Amino acid sequence: MGSPSFTDRLNAVAADTEALLARLLDGTPLPGETARPERLVAAMRHAALGGGKRLRPFLLVESATLFGAPRDGALLAGCALELLHCYSLVHDDLPAMDNDDLRRGRPTVHKAFDDATAILAGDALLTLAFDILARDEVHADAKVRIALVRELARASGLGGMAGGQMLDLSAEGRFAEKRALSEKEIVTLQAMKTGALLRFACRAGALLGQADAGHLAAMERYGAAIGEAFQIADDLLDVEGDAATLGKAAHKDADAGKATLVAALGVAGARAKLEALIDAADGALAPFGAKADTLRDAARFVAERRN
Amino acid sequence: MGSPSFTDRLNAVAADTEALLARLLDGTPLPGETARPERLVAAMRHAALGGGKRLRPFLLVESATLFGAPRDGALLAGCALELLHCYSLVHDDLPAMDNDDLRRGRPTVHKAFDDATAILAGDALLTLAFDILARDEVHADAKVRIALVRELARASGLGGMAGGQMLDLSAEGRFAEKRALSEKEIVTLQAMKTGALLRFACRAGALLGQADAGHLAAMERYGAAIGEAFQIADDLLDVEGDAATLGKAAHKDADAGKATLVAALGVAGARAKLEALIDAADGALAPFGAKADTLRDAARFVAERRN
Repeated sequence: MGSPSFTDRLNAVAADTEALLARLLDGTPLPGETARPERLVAAMRHAALGGGKRLRPFLLVESATLFGAPRDGALLAGCALELLHCYSLVHDDLPAMDNDDLRRGRPTVHKAFDDATAILAGDALLTLAFDILARDEVHADAKVRIALVRELARASGLGGMAGGQMLDLSAEGRFAEKRALSEKEIVTLQAMKTGALLRFACRAGALLGQADAGHLAAMERYGAAIGEAFQIADDLLDVEGDAATLGKAAHKDADAGKATLVAALGVAGARAKLEALIDAADGALAPFGAKADTLRDAARFVAERRN
Repeated sequence: MGSPSFTDRLNAVAADTEALLARLLDGTPLPGETARPERLVAAMRHAALGGGKRLRPFLLVESATLFGAPRDGALLAGCALELLHCYSLVHDDLPAMDNDDLRRGRPTVHKAFDDATAILAGDALLTLAFDILARDEVHADAKVRIALVRELARASGLGGMAGGQMLDLSAEGRFAEKRALSEKEIVTLQAMKTGALLRFACRAGALLGQADAGHLAAMERYGAAIGEAFQIADDLLDVEGDAATLGKAAHKDADAGKATLVAALGVAGARAKLEALIDAADGALAPFGAKADTLRDAARFVAERRN
């Protein structure tokens, strides 16, 4: 999957992200902090360290590289994005939400600690994401940092990721009689729940590189295609995968009757849609020529991933 | 309690805050948002509208006024702060945390909706706070806005409010054998759990007015005194108040054996400490002369409040 150099690049960002997250989540209070309670630090580290492909930081760092932005600032912004992603997993896993016991093959935060600690850890991870984006080290220009803050907030809040999770719970029939969603409604739900953060990752690199409006729009199109492909690949994995490979329960979504494009289009239809999305991602990157080859590989990687 | 003009000013900020929050929480998606799910909007409105003295926005607006910052930007920043405060109430009220059914005399969000919706509403309120602080209308200078983002994140996260709630749950003996906290430990806990946001309110006004370091430090001292006084007044109310006045269960903290300074110092000792804190607040405001009279009244108001 991907050329050797693609895998090397992916692994390098994952390793750097892991190391930086470990430093960001140490126990020493920063200026303006009174103390960092040990139990909360431990729960946040459990949530954020030790795993994952770090796909969002990778897309952010590689997009930043395309626009000539320094890697260190992009890595820090990538960590902010990853912390925000991790908060959403911690809260989604709670008994009141999706009630998951396993995540990346390990106990979820509320299983390893307790529900109250998991709620607080999620809150603190979300908050830390904005703390980090506001730091000088992300970018020398405060206007760039404030744009990142605004875009991440908008991608992840009421009209983005959190809103998407709300729609997903509604679609499960949690609050009223369950009804089948149309293909269009499923696309909207997924664009919010998982797509918004992936789009942000791609836009953030362009913002860090102070790209012009045309290039920003190209990265938005690329990110949207990646986001949709990610979700379809995820749904295919849920149908076809097994728990050992996934590190979480398989068939969970299908068993819950969750609204997915795989259910709407069938497996063959979903695979065809994935190919079309890889082409769309390719097309969005056309203005950048060979410089964007890593991002092209990334689109195929996202669409074809097996775990 | 306070001169008539003080009450007028307090009520004016409360009314303006309420109106602005209602607009910020309407159902229309902003640029970058896909859709605003109806149920989530309703839960967020339930959490944020229709109540409270809006003390935090008031302190922020009056501090901004002291430093000559425009009222509109301060009100918007005040709304961000209030949304963040409201998120903390929604999550703290959850069954997994303090398990409260009533807030300001109305059902808490998880009672009016359900636990999952309350978790998401809290998450989205927290996120919206940072979205708002990042907007141009808060202040023309992006450096000012990014400073507000960083300080609010630090006041409310791992080393601030969320950390304080973690310490409070630990002090209740939730995760290990309960042990009595020292007076110093109680002060630290409360400085994080409730003090940090009140300190931020006072510092934020100075940041909006681009105050110099000496004046910022004065507002930090003022805010710290207000924060400590607020908590002691709250604990006295818990001991002496009744549910009808409070709009929530009285004696709840005392019944839970929560660590409070009233328990540590006794009622008379706590009242003496309150007077000392009013003096400290006064002292911090000395450089500003009569221009700071509203903030002086605010300190007494916080210390002497009866609900």
